[in-house]
Amino acid sequence: MLINRRTIRIEWGDCDPAGIVFYPRYFEWFDASSAALFETAGFLRGDLVARQGMAIPMVDTRSRFLIPSRFGDELTIETTITRFGRSSFDVQHRVLKGADLAVECSETRVWARIDPAVPGRLKSQPIPEAVIRALSQDTK
Amino acid sequence: MLINRRTIRIEWGDCDPAGIVFYPRYFEWFDASSAALFETAGFLRGDLVARQGMAIPMVDTRSRFLIPSRFGDELTIETTITRFGRSSFDVQHRVLKGADLAVECSETRVWARIDPAVPGRLKSQPIPEAVIRALSQDTK
Amino acid sequence: MLINRRTIRIEWGDCDPAGIVFYPRYFEWFDASSAALFETAGFLRGDLVARQGMAIPMVDTRSRFLIPSRFGDELTIETTITRFGRSSFDVQHRVLKGADLAVECSETRVWARIDPAVPGRLKSQPIPEAVIRALSQDTK
Amino acid sequence: MLINRRTIRIEWGDCDPAGIVFYPRYFEWFDASSAALFETAGFLRGDLVARQGMAIPMVDTRSRFLIPSRFGDELTIETTITRFGRSSFDVQHRVLKGADLAVECSETRVWARIDPAVPGRLKSQPIPEAVIRALSQDTK
Repeated sequence: MLINRRTIRIEWGDCDPAGIVFYPRYFEWFDASSAALFETAGFLRGDLVARQGMAIPMVDTRSRFLIPSRFGDELTIETTITRFGRSSFDVQHRVLKGADLAVECSETRVWARIDPAVPGRLKSQPIPEAVIRALSQDTK
Repeated sequence: MLINRRTIRIEWGDCDPAGIVFYPRYFEWFDASSAALFETAGFLRGDLVARQGMAIPMVDTRSRFLIPSRFGDELTIETTITRFGRSSFDVQHRVLKGADLAVECSETRVWARIDPAVPGRLKSQPIPEAVIRALSQDTK
Repeated sequence: MLINRRTIRIEWGDCDPAGIVFYPRYFEWFDASSAALFETAGFLRGDLVARQGMAIPMVDTRSRFLIPSRFGDELTIETTITRFGRSSFDVQHRVLKGADLAVECSETRVWARIDPAVPGRLKSQPIPEAVIRALSQDTK
Repeated sequence: MLINRRTIRIEWGDCDPAGIVFYPRYFEWFDASSAALFETAGFLRGDLVARQGMAIPMVDTRSRFLIPSRFGDELTIETTITRFGRSSFDVQHRVLKGADLAVECSETRVWARIDPAVPGRLKSQPIPEAVIRALSQDTK
């Protein structure tokens, strides 16, 4: 499976008064990481939305927080697909702090069409073969 | 068990280009909802941190997104404790859109002491009896 | 002029490691406060966008931070129009902490049409008389 | 004067239902850009806070939005000091979209000591000569 790796630098504004990352920030990074995985596979989220009217809304996400991080820390997020269904798929994110697993997250998203007539309405669609193939290739 | 209810109004800036709530925003509301439950029980998060050096960091959270919401929507978040361990506890949030369950979330947090000498270091502590008792009372 | 007043409760996640509000949060509240002023005048932002394809994008904003606020604090935001141009208008926000002015902000926005064919393209339009009249009425 | 340059990639979650960057996000990037300028000069914000108890809170900021940006866009933020006072200083941010100025921002911050006994209390201090010297060097 294709794996995408990104480095995140923890900023002052990402942290709370206890001095650690305010956990909703991780989900912002996970969302961008899922988009980055698609982009690595050749599917730019911007193009999917603007040209094809497709989005990948979240259905279910679970995250475990093992090691807190503070501002100035650098984290690596490794993202890959762990399952393809007909119109849904599972994504896994592993946040590494050096060699240690700091946070892990699994999410289920759907391949969905945006209804231009009704803002906020999305309708699931079968995932195209080309998308599955591109995301399933081995990372070089 | 004590239940806390809050009403959330979806703002323009909470929504993404598909016109629906950007899902990390829910976790911001869940974090504030857990704090609000403690406050309803008589434990103001600000006082816990400032006077006692205690925080309730997140260990594990899972959320399911059933119905998307758009800006202008009003949501009710119902929050209650579903389990007390020695130093950890589970919180459940139910997001209602009218009578419908729109999002549900379960989270595990710990009762932890902030180490003033090392920003970002937290150490779990037994949950005090008074905290358990106050959160276990019936909602009037 | 119409004045809108909202109360904001500072949450844990709004604050930074110095224990005070991370200042970009104020701009999120100001944006929602401008929308709330329009809503008080009878123009729901959601309807403006969904039915009329109109938005009120920001052109210029300036904010002065006089008194820091911490989590648990309650602030009142007073919002009013201070100038109408042909297609632009100025909004003023005053953030009160008790009787003290904590933050003040002035902003210039435009009355603009969203181009449905090109996401992100906005074109300024003359502000309708009905909008000016409604925002100019005295607060009861 | 020292100039810091960073590249920002606009994410889906940075944008609003009109498809453009929700403007408070720029202030998050400006805050991180000011920290990055200090870091380029040899003063890591994390160390300033943790070891010296110093912060650089915002006093006054003004931003002009000239060209909207959409998700997928890449922006360069150029940051430099434009004035040193006794305990305050001015920072300028120029956001470039290709060769075009998309957003510009000027801000006044203070060099301030965090009071460890009172969370959220900050006291301005004279800016150390070494800080002024490091930020005033020419960019190589």
